[in-house]
Amino acid sequence: MKKSLGAVPLVFPMPAFLVASYDPSGRPNLMTAAWGGIASSDPPCVSVSIRPSRLSHESILANRAFTVNIPNARLAEAVDFAGIVSGRQADKFAKAGLTAVKSDLVKAPYVAECPVILECELYKTVDLGAHTMMIGKIIDVKAEEGLAGEGPPLDIDKVDPLVYNSGGDYHRVGASIGKAFFVGKNLK
Amino acid sequence: MKKSLGAVPLVFPMPAFLVASYDPSGRPNLMTAAWGGIASSDPPCVSVSIRPSRLSHESILANRAFTVNIPNARLAEAVDFAGIVSGRQADKFAKAGLTAVKSDLVKAPYVAECPVILECELYKTVDLGAHTMMIGKIIDVKAEEGLAGEGPPLDIDKVDPLVYNSGGDYHRVGASIGKAFFVGKNLK
Repeated sequence: MKKSLGAVPLVFPMPAFLVASYDPSGRPNLMTAAWGGIASSDPPCVSVSIRPSRLSHESILANRAFTVNIPNARLAEAVDFAGIVSGRQADKFAKAGLTAVKSDLVKAPYVAECPVILECELYKTVDLGAHTMMIGKIIDVKAEEGLAGEGPPLDIDKVDPLVYNSGGDYHRVGASIGKAFFVGKNLK
Repeated sequence: MKKSLGAVPLVFPMPAFLVASYDPSGRPNLMTAAWGGIASSDPPCVSVSIRPSRLSHESILANRAFTVNIPNARLAEAVDFAGIVSGRQADKFAKAGLTAVKSDLVKAPYVAECPVILECELYKTVDLGAHTMMIGKIIDVKAEEGLAGEGPPLDIDKVDPLVYNSGGDYHRVGASIGKAFFVGKNLK
């Protein structure tokens, strides 16, 4: 029996991305975004939704670029911190003990401590009321050595990404339960 | 040291949603979508990206509605199956052993076996080349009784959602590693 929860923004799993950009004065800024995901394969695109009041909103529109940084479980405190403090009040990179590295290909910094980072050019924006969806064209993905061979799949246990349980807590990824494009063949 | 993987559509974690709709002849249809996520809070919106060749693409545009169904780990075979077979060739609900229930509020079926479902009206579409992003306005979320009190957070261990490791395998969600809007306060 199912019970109505009302019109709430809720899916499982939800990510906890660190989105990095240069603010209008050129200083690296950071925010946590749980609302987003892959948006297309060709061109490869990722979306993150950001409130217009955020410094990151202004920063991404000014530079037409951002990075999506995939934190691991060791960074849970930093991720949570970047979600509860404004870049207008604090240098979030410094306070969170994170290192801003100038991207090779886009006008945005990335987070050195994150195992996987996506360098993105702003491709489209979609006004969705409380949030603006920033759709980034993925120019390059970089992963720590040892996580991958020549490309996906990466070893998700080594990436050790955070899963956000909306309104609740952060989790690790757990056990593998089956190979994709394979286990479903039993039903064909 | 980071290594370039090229311009690939890759984030962590990625979901494995079952997207359900009525095809133009009124038959329930299903597909698996890993590309999507929450898009805004007000109006509450979710996005899923779908190739124009898919039967679901035509179906969602025809009815201006779809459901996003959150499968649990027990449904991994069905989820994988719905991603490798076309609804033009098979009744995917029947073959996967899933039950299509008429939604209360939108013109789309939902998957009875999924612990959490979102009833959505098509709100906006965004052409992104290989995929069309379908942005749905969330009209209602329904969860199995026992997963929640009066709303989020749900008990994610009981929801037991799938995490998709792109190009690789399906995983469960693992251990909790800290409370959101709390563990980051240490860094303030």
